[in-house]
Amino acid sequence: MLLGRVVGTLVATRKEPSLEGLKFLVLRQLDIDGKDMSGYRVAADAVGAGLGEVVLYATGSSARMTTVTDKRPCDGVIMAIVDTLEVDGVVTYDKSEVG
Amino acid sequence: MLLGRVVGTLVATRKEPSLEGLKFLVLRQLDIDGKDMSGYRVAADAVGAGLGEVVLYATGSSARMTTVTDKRPCDGVIMAIVDTLEVDGVVTYDKSEVG
Amino acid sequence: MLLGRVVGTLVATRKEPSLEGLKFLVLRQLDIDGKDMSGYRVAADAVGAGLGEVVLYATGSSARMTTVTDKRPCDGVIMAIVDTLEVDGVVTYDKSEVG
Amino acid sequence: MLLGRVVGTLVATRKEPSLEGLKFLVLRQLDIDGKDMSGYRVAADAVGAGLGEVVLYATGSSARMTTVTDKRPCDGVIMAIVDTLEVDGVVTYDKSEVG
Amino acid sequence: MLLGRVVGTLVATRKEPSLEGLKFLVLRQLDIDGKDMSGYRVAADAVGAGLGEVVLYATGSSARMTTVTDKRPCDGVIMAIVDTLEVDGVVTYDKSEVG
Repeated sequence: MLLGRVVGTLVATRKEPSLEGLKFLVLRQLDIDGKDMSGYRVAADAVGAGLGEVVLYATGSSARMTTVTDKRPCDGVIMAIVDTLEVDGVVTYDKSEVG
Repeated sequence: MLLGRVVGTLVATRKEPSLEGLKFLVLRQLDIDGKDMSGYRVAADAVGAGLGEVVLYATGSSARMTTVTDKRPCDGVIMAIVDTLEVDGVVTYDKSEVG
Repeated sequence: MLLGRVVGTLVATRKEPSLEGLKFLVLRQLDIDGKDMSGYRVAADAVGAGLGEVVLYATGSSARMTTVTDKRPCDGVIMAIVDTLEVDGVVTYDKSEVG
Repeated sequence: MLLGRVVGTLVATRKEPSLEGLKFLVLRQLDIDGKDMSGYRVAADAVGAGLGEVVLYATGSSARMTTVTDKRPCDGVIMAIVDTLEVDGVVTYDKSEVG
Repeated sequence: MLLGRVVGTLVATRKEPSLEGLKFLVLRQLDIDGKDMSGYRVAADAVGAGLGEVVLYATGSSARMTTVTDKRPCDGVIMAIVDTLEVDGVVTYDKSEVG
């Protein structure tokens, strides 16, 4: 899994029928020090993530292992909302301090 | 998923029999600010996308989760046509304003 | 899928038994303007591609969705030979003019 | 598989229900000379790895082939703790000398 | 598939039980001119490869399509030992001349 921050939303009315009802969020990739990286990913939301939140997302076939993405043409899913991240003994992200 | 703009078409008469009838489109990868990136992808079209449209595409095994790509040797599929994209509170793409 | 040009061959007598009879070709990755990129891929040939031809190849589990690669430890397959490629209204590759 | 060093932990109370009980560790990617690389990965722990240990991790669908990750939306798993690594005849990592 | 040269070995006593007996080799990625690239991969050995040999390896789910890796958390496998590699009409690697 990689870390991302929810930075946007995407509307698509014309899509594969099985994707109806799925919410797609735009993620900016984050490094483990909490800083933005250059990459991004559009992922289905399986946990009710909100704008600005730091999340964990899975890609590939593993992105289909949730109720909302099962058997759908979807290769990225937000499967957890990060509360705290601690790297090398330092808390690099704490949701309670940000939000 | 990643964002792409349909920039071209590809004709291939000699191919794996199961791919007969599939339409392949050439996608230029797009960043979330709507600008071109350096990468590209050739993807099967599952939604009737047209030249110039901004689309969402899935790769890997998830690309086979549509009726037209099921069990076929195809690792990229356009599964949605983007109407609007909003990042950091700014609309970076709006199909109604472009087309 | 990505585009590649068949630039070479590979001989391997000692291999996983299930790969017996598979033909492996060396592909130089191509950009959509028809120019060489720095990457390469060794792929199984499912369509009878020849040296110099521009092909479309699939990777990952999708590479096993052909009769010759089914259930084999093979993560790349040539599934189509490109006749023409048209990008931004310009034909960037035309097999009939090259060959 | 790639090599990583366990550098951190991640807490996420809101997540896909099937992930309950899984421990996520933050890995800094390592090169085969034992030096840090720029990439990272968050992976589920299937072997009881500890902070500072050098581990082997698998990604993609293979990350689901353990008891703790089976059928879960998880695309990275630590599946081995490295004791020694020998490259070009030189021991580049020896757990007994570090720990 | 990509090309690699076997440059090392890895010992891991604490690992996912299903990996017991699997031999992991360290591969330096090779370009098609036979030169070292910067990447590496740790792969399970399905063909009895030896140090210094040039091999072909598969990644992702395809890496599990051998008897020794079936259903195991392993995302890379050596599935062939390269005898000769010919690119652009030039033999860039010939095992009989090296070994």
